[in-house]
Amino acid sequence: MTKRIRIIGIGMGDPRHLTGEAVEALRTVDVFLVADKGERSADLVAARQAICDSAIPRERRYRFVEVTDPQRGPDAGLSPAAYGQGVRDWHAARVDAYADVLAGLGPEEGTVGFLVWGDPAFYDSTIRVVDALSERLDLEHDVIPGISAPQLLAARHRVPLNRIGGSIHVTTGRRLLDEYDPSLGDVVVMLDGHLTCRDLVDRHPELELLWGAYLGSPDELLVRGPLGEVIDEVERLRVAARGRHGWVLDTYLLRQPD
Amino acid sequence: MTKRIRIIGIGMGDPRHLTGEAVEALRTVDVFLVADKGERSADLVAARQAICDSAIPRERRYRFVEVTDPQRGPDAGLSPAAYGQGVRDWHAARVDAYADVLAGLGPEEGTVGFLVWGDPAFYDSTIRVVDALSERLDLEHDVIPGISAPQLLAARHRVPLNRIGGSIHVTTGRRLLDEYDPSLGDVVVMLDGHLTCRDLVDRHPELELLWGAYLGSPDELLVRGPLGEVIDEVERLRVAARGRHGWVLDTYLLRQPD
Repeated sequence: MTKRIRIIGIGMGDPRHLTGEAVEALRTVDVFLVADKGERSADLVAARQAICDSAIPRERRYRFVEVTDPQRGPDAGLSPAAYGQGVRDWHAARVDAYADVLAGLGPEEGTVGFLVWGDPAFYDSTIRVVDALSERLDLEHDVIPGISAPQLLAARHRVPLNRIGGSIHVTTGRRLLDEYDPSLGDVVVMLDGHLTCRDLVDRHPELELLWGAYLGSPDELLVRGPLGEVIDEVERLRVAARGRHGWVLDTYLLRQPD
Repeated sequence: MTKRIRIIGIGMGDPRHLTGEAVEALRTVDVFLVADKGERSADLVAARQAICDSAIPRERRYRFVEVTDPQRGPDAGLSPAAYGQGVRDWHAARVDAYADVLAGLGPEEGTVGFLVWGDPAFYDSTIRVVDALSERLDLEHDVIPGISAPQLLAARHRVPLNRIGGSIHVTTGRRLLDEYDPSLGDVVVMLDGHLTCRDLVDRHPELELLWGAYLGSPDELLVRGPLGEVIDEVERLRVAARGRHGWVLDTYLLRQPD
């Protein structure tokens, strides 16, 4: 029997970021598959539950199935090719784990949901995992967009991501130093666990940094200013926040002054 | 008296793209300022009204004020500097028009809303206009993100915008030919009235095109395939759709094959 898979972007943690389309989709799901990421997940499990509680009527029955996430080795020092292969191996192990769970669902559990923080199109592997599952199992699937970190970052700082007629470049901490050039336009950096932008201060002291962490949550942090002047404050806030939460999720925009 | 300005991203036309935060914001607005863009606006006025009707309870009173959009000269053939200056002059004229309207509002009309298609952070001038208004008038403002065209494009084609560990570059039709290089990663093109990507076929026959128009509306069109093979079909669909609607809003993703 064909299972229906719904990949649902749920925004950054505040249930008010859900779209009406996402709320409708959540209400059709019988089983949510969620990755068990270990320690970091306590806050995230609570936030996810709050989102479902806010969207799904009490009388509607659904369940969560936690799927243990395969271990990933450290990324540090890997070449881009080795990094990509590592991610692909990890995806393959996830696909195996999800395929086992899907095969074990009852016939009455026809609709399966994946909850994706932010937007499924931005730096998330769920679509790739479901594509791989579709090659093995009888599935149909759809994707519901959600509010992503760069959008909330821009909204909270009340800036557009592009200059007039300019470009926006979205990249990762791993790529930033090799790629950065003012001709890219305004640059959004994702997945940067090390504030790599610090290493741009000497080369581009003119850059402005617009940083945000825990966007959309009550713990939201925002800093804006010349990169060289604010980077130490951002570092301090980051270390303190990591101490409180055990994890930090942040993103930032780098741009040339007007 | 301080006026409160709310810049609200309303997605791409389907009221189900509104977030809960946007719905809450819409319900606080006394006066919506909307640009009167002439002919093209008949469909858009209807879509905007449908969005307000879906979000705002019938008993809540609000009104629309149409502000005539200043004329803009043709962009074709302008240098980037002249293009930027043209946009800035046009912004200044808009700011004058909006300032006049704001100055004429009654004291009971304390909250003013700007409805922005898509997301206010992506290729939209409202934030810049409100920043300029804030220098003249006593205003406070906030920004509510919304689902943007690139997100819907990716969701409908059920692809992520980035490859594993890769970058995303968002640019305009005006810049595409000068900028395009595979090292940019996957490239989203906005504001391209001329399907500029056709001129990349010879240089990059390997590119895949994922195109979408009227995203999120009942008239949605999607095409995906090798650029050289599908560009003629996209052109045909575009011409036919422009004939039916009088306007076309589209966006596309260019990417290297896996």
